[in-house]
Amino acid sequence: MDTRFRGVFPPVVTALTADGQLDEVSFARSINRMIDAGVHGLFVLGSSGEVAFSTDERRREIIEAAVRIVDHRVPLLVGCIDTESKRVIEHAKQAQALGADAIVATAPFYALGGMAEVERHFRLIHEAVDLPLFAYDIPVCVHTKLPAGLLVKLGLDGVLTGVKDSSNDDAGFRFLADANKKAGHPLVLLTGQEVVVDGAYMAGADGSVPGLANVEATGYVRMWNAYEAGDWATVRKEQDFLADLMRIVLVPQGVQGYGSGVGAFKTAMALLGVFDTNQMPEPVLPLKGENVERVAEVLREVGLEPAVSVDAVSASAAVREL
Amino acid sequence: MDTRFRGVFPPVVTALTADGQLDEVSFARSINRMIDAGVHGLFVLGSSGEVAFSTDERRREIIEAAVRIVDHRVPLLVGCIDTESKRVIEHAKQAQALGADAIVATAPFYALGGMAEVERHFRLIHEAVDLPLFAYDIPVCVHTKLPAGLLVKLGLDGVLTGVKDSSNDDAGFRFLADANKKAGHPLVLLTGQEVVVDGAYMAGADGSVPGLANVEATGYVRMWNAYEAGDWATVRKEQDFLADLMRIVLVPQGVQGYGSGVGAFKTAMALLGVFDTNQMPEPVLPLKGENVERVAEVLREVGLEPAVSVDAVSASAAVREL
Amino acid sequence: MDTRFRGVFPPVVTALTADGQLDEVSFARSINRMIDAGVHGLFVLGSSGEVAFSTDERRREIIEAAVRIVDHRVPLLVGCIDTESKRVIEHAKQAQALGADAIVATAPFYALGGMAEVERHFRLIHEAVDLPLFAYDIPVCVHTKLPAGLLVKLGLDGVLTGVKDSSNDDAGFRFLADANKKAGHPLVLLTGQEVVVDGAYMAGADGSVPGLANVEATGYVRMWNAYEAGDWATVRKEQDFLADLMRIVLVPQGVQGYGSGVGAFKTAMALLGVFDTNQMPEPVLPLKGENVERVAEVLREVGLEPAVSVDAVSASAAVREL
Amino acid sequence: MDTRFRGVFPPVVTALTADGQLDEVSFARSINRMIDAGVHGLFVLGSSGEVAFSTDERRREIIEAAVRIVDHRVPLLVGCIDTESKRVIEHAKQAQALGADAIVATAPFYALGGMAEVERHFRLIHEAVDLPLFAYDIPVCVHTKLPAGLLVKLGLDGVLTGVKDSSNDDAGFRFLADANKKAGHPLVLLTGQEVVVDGAYMAGADGSVPGLANVEATGYVRMWNAYEAGDWATVRKEQDFLADLMRIVLVPQGVQGYGSGVGAFKTAMALLGVFDTNQMPEPVLPLKGENVERVAEVLREVGLEPAVSVDAVSASAAVREL
Repeated sequence: MDTRFRGVFPPVVTALTADGQLDEVSFARSINRMIDAGVHGLFVLGSSGEVAFSTDERRREIIEAAVRIVDHRVPLLVGCIDTESKRVIEHAKQAQALGADAIVATAPFYALGGMAEVERHFRLIHEAVDLPLFAYDIPVCVHTKLPAGLLVKLGLDGVLTGVKDSSNDDAGFRFLADANKKAGHPLVLLTGQEVVVDGAYMAGADGSVPGLANVEATGYVRMWNAYEAGDWATVRKEQDFLADLMRIVLVPQGVQGYGSGVGAFKTAMALLGVFDTNQMPEPVLPLKGENVERVAEVLREVGLEPAVSVDAVSASAAVREL
Repeated sequence: MDTRFRGVFPPVVTALTADGQLDEVSFARSINRMIDAGVHGLFVLGSSGEVAFSTDERRREIIEAAVRIVDHRVPLLVGCIDTESKRVIEHAKQAQALGADAIVATAPFYALGGMAEVERHFRLIHEAVDLPLFAYDIPVCVHTKLPAGLLVKLGLDGVLTGVKDSSNDDAGFRFLADANKKAGHPLVLLTGQEVVVDGAYMAGADGSVPGLANVEATGYVRMWNAYEAGDWATVRKEQDFLADLMRIVLVPQGVQGYGSGVGAFKTAMALLGVFDTNQMPEPVLPLKGENVERVAEVLREVGLEPAVSVDAVSASAAVREL
Repeated sequence: MDTRFRGVFPPVVTALTADGQLDEVSFARSINRMIDAGVHGLFVLGSSGEVAFSTDERRREIIEAAVRIVDHRVPLLVGCIDTESKRVIEHAKQAQALGADAIVATAPFYALGGMAEVERHFRLIHEAVDLPLFAYDIPVCVHTKLPAGLLVKLGLDGVLTGVKDSSNDDAGFRFLADANKKAGHPLVLLTGQEVVVDGAYMAGADGSVPGLANVEATGYVRMWNAYEAGDWATVRKEQDFLADLMRIVLVPQGVQGYGSGVGAFKTAMALLGVFDTNQMPEPVLPLKGENVERVAEVLREVGLEPAVSVDAVSASAAVREL
Repeated sequence: MDTRFRGVFPPVVTALTADGQLDEVSFARSINRMIDAGVHGLFVLGSSGEVAFSTDERRREIIEAAVRIVDHRVPLLVGCIDTESKRVIEHAKQAQALGADAIVATAPFYALGGMAEVERHFRLIHEAVDLPLFAYDIPVCVHTKLPAGLLVKLGLDGVLTGVKDSSNDDAGFRFLADANKKAGHPLVLLTGQEVVVDGAYMAGADGSVPGLANVEATGYVRMWNAYEAGDWATVRKEQDFLADLMRIVLVPQGVQGYGSGVGAFKTAMALLGVFDTNQMPEPVLPLKGENVERVAEVLREVGLEPAVSVDAVSASAAVREL
């Protein structure tokens, strides 16, 4: 197992200016805040890093900014998310050229296929780009669940370095961890579920990739340290706190999916003064008004007092009428 | 919260004779073995208790046998699983008449509807039958996920006593546990996932309903006791052992779903001498030959030496050619 | 092919009294109206015949009433819908004892399985009950799609007499019709889609099972006669009219699934004076107020003037507060 | 309605050389063959045009070649398929710059959202690019079904020119056609289902987008002409022939999805001498050996004698071992 990739690796939420450009100042503020909190690495251009919304040019800007800001303090993983192999490989080559320490790719999506294509897809990416490769298991987005047997086989063959599991299939994750252990632990197993990291650690995860760490990283670092020390009572206490905070994604009303999920992250970050705006990528709209207030309320309930007013956040992002 | 329902409540696998009748001797042997192991209650006519395969007459036989065998040593929950309210209520009235301590019902299935119908369904059952009522959240079978908000509301209204969660949605379970706690813990929360009980306990579950306990109950009891004692290292160790054993459901080849899941439980129980046969309910066929050997191999790997030969188990259940 | 089963076979909607009992007078009125309109057969206890909501006793009442009312004027198909083989066989034996001319069964549901179980399921039913057996392909309810290859094989083996296709997979239906024709047409193929019967006839269907025929059967009979005469312009014209009428299921607001679908059928039938009430089976509620008006409006738009007022229909069915 | 877009608009299958480059000679041969057959337009970079597999550079090559070959003989639609609005708009601007007559876009995919985002997505594309815009309704790829109400509203607002329906929801298509007609027919409705075009014409489709026309376009043109003449018997006869031919996608074994679907199209085209190879885009592999023979057999059965041997086609595409 490649031990560089153990620990807390937040998927970095992308900061936008009021008019939708990359906001490098806010982006740096957030990244530095997470590194200062003690995270072990960072993952840009994941699902919550708005990879699907970003043009190739925007993706390049994000990688360049991240490489410059991180400056080798921690390993930087870069999401190379696209429909099929050749498109993914182009992103991967660019990520390598710009300084990524590892790349992350999903199963193919859009076109229908079977596991033979999924396996060949990862082999093609590995063959094309000489960087550690993580499989990103996210069936809610790509509608394919990566089977444990295939993942371990690709780990043993040196194709995959690890797995970023966002499958919300905790039984499957346990079986994967068990199979990985039996095979000599070739894969680094990172869980992408914010509120059940404790269970994933119980199952033997090597780390986590919690989007919520953009709002509050210190809890995830304390949870990891407790896990390393075998202090499960603290693991549980920290997870309870973070699950309580995660309610920010449940409280927005009249908004679904990305708009309430990453929308709530950005809104909380703007309320805490980390981001200058809670702007979202088109066609998603930023949270406004009462939804900002609902997020603020959760922050207050868990003891994170907003530094910026609800009104200011609500006014921070432009929305063009169509 | 009704504290009678805390702890380990295995869903009881139904014993059949070679020709498909209820095998009361084997059934009693298994129930007594689990009670002797220290389980806190039992749940008959759950999904793994072949409720969907059992005629009304068979359901009556199973309840009567279970009531007689259990003889009030532990609480007995009875699954009242059917498509819509009036059919469920008939089962529930029968369960009550025969001596059930609590009843368990899913969301309506087959016909399509919305949450208004789901809520009314549970209210109708509660109104009709004066027994503690558990909601059985099992979207893989009924294709409806019960929302945390509705469950807690029905708990506060005294409609539901608890939830048996088989949704394999661990993030959802954490949010449910959080909401339940904030509401004053009206609901008993039991997890139905065999291999991630540790994570559910971390999340605050009040107990578990593990089908695998039919094969090996002592581990689940030790895990519960460790949980009660705050000994998380032991919780984890026991879960690792049980997850390793649970591989029996993964190893059968050429068989899917119920045939490999409950089929493997029954086969392991026959290999261990608990059941006289591994017979399955029509139209599902029992595991035979190499699949029995595969289950036996897993048993041996985890240190549970079969007491009955693979050949004997393989020959134990009649299969009629059609 | 068994030619008794060609033509228009409406799935009979069940009439309830205001307090939820079987309303035999309204039931007879509707059945006689459809037979008078020229339908070629009737199908009771289908999905729209509220089979999933009906207790065994209610199912018996419905079959007995239908047998008595139909009195051999047309063939009577009876839905034997339940989760697994033995439960279905019990319904099938009762249907046979009460005078059914044919039985209709879905793939197994609730428990998970594979195609081996599906095939054995139909063989078991056929073996147990000496009546023509129709496979009911309705994945939206049972979450299994019956493959064309399996259906034709069971047709050639004499297990299945026909298929009632409610899969809304028109490409699949065309392939099934093609395979059936190539195999010598062993199966009677009936489509269950109200608004694309014309396309199914183009594909070679042997008939239709349109729920909407409970509201307006004459159009389906005229469409069938035009199809038999090769008069496609009339087929199309009649289908356009019926699709326009079918909008009754789209207009209710705040109601989903069965409540708006069969709910609209019953409401239209009550507005037209066919049923005395639009009562629905628990836990589904009848349409009220503005939703009744919306259905009435569609009726008027297509030239079917309501005989009963919106207010009277709205008041016709009791709803118990819980 | 924009009448330029009525009729048969095949989605153009992309020709590759043995080593995976764009084969412009074969591509031109196929396009010219379809135009000579009388198709009314062409659609490049659709799902079967391997848009999801093509890099931006390959997409540009395909558009440039198509524009040059078609040379304004028929309208050219270009698929601008990508995950979210800004990425789609980039493709759309490029398509416009290269000479597209219209563009085709799906609902957003990968990230989760609701209908508000879907509507804004199409409005953003329309605002950015001054070309007729078709909505591509293909839930099997993007996991969102476009509702009829939204489509008609966007048609009336001038945002959408038409819909390419590949939803395999024939009842939904009938309701869409009905709603479109009632609204004054703002939308051109094209069906993407090869084997039920007759039913779509019955429902009032304005044309078809059949992938199978790459193999055999003349039948679709004859079917359209018969439809225009009201000669339904011929419509049906042609559809029967084409459905029989479409079995090429069902006969490959051990291959799923794109590999058997477009894989069979390319194989048939190679057997008929239209394409020089049946090469597929990575990570999909071309059909080989017995699967090529199975496709050839179907061709012979429907009277399309292969011009190239099975062995030659089987050897025509390189496969790199990984």
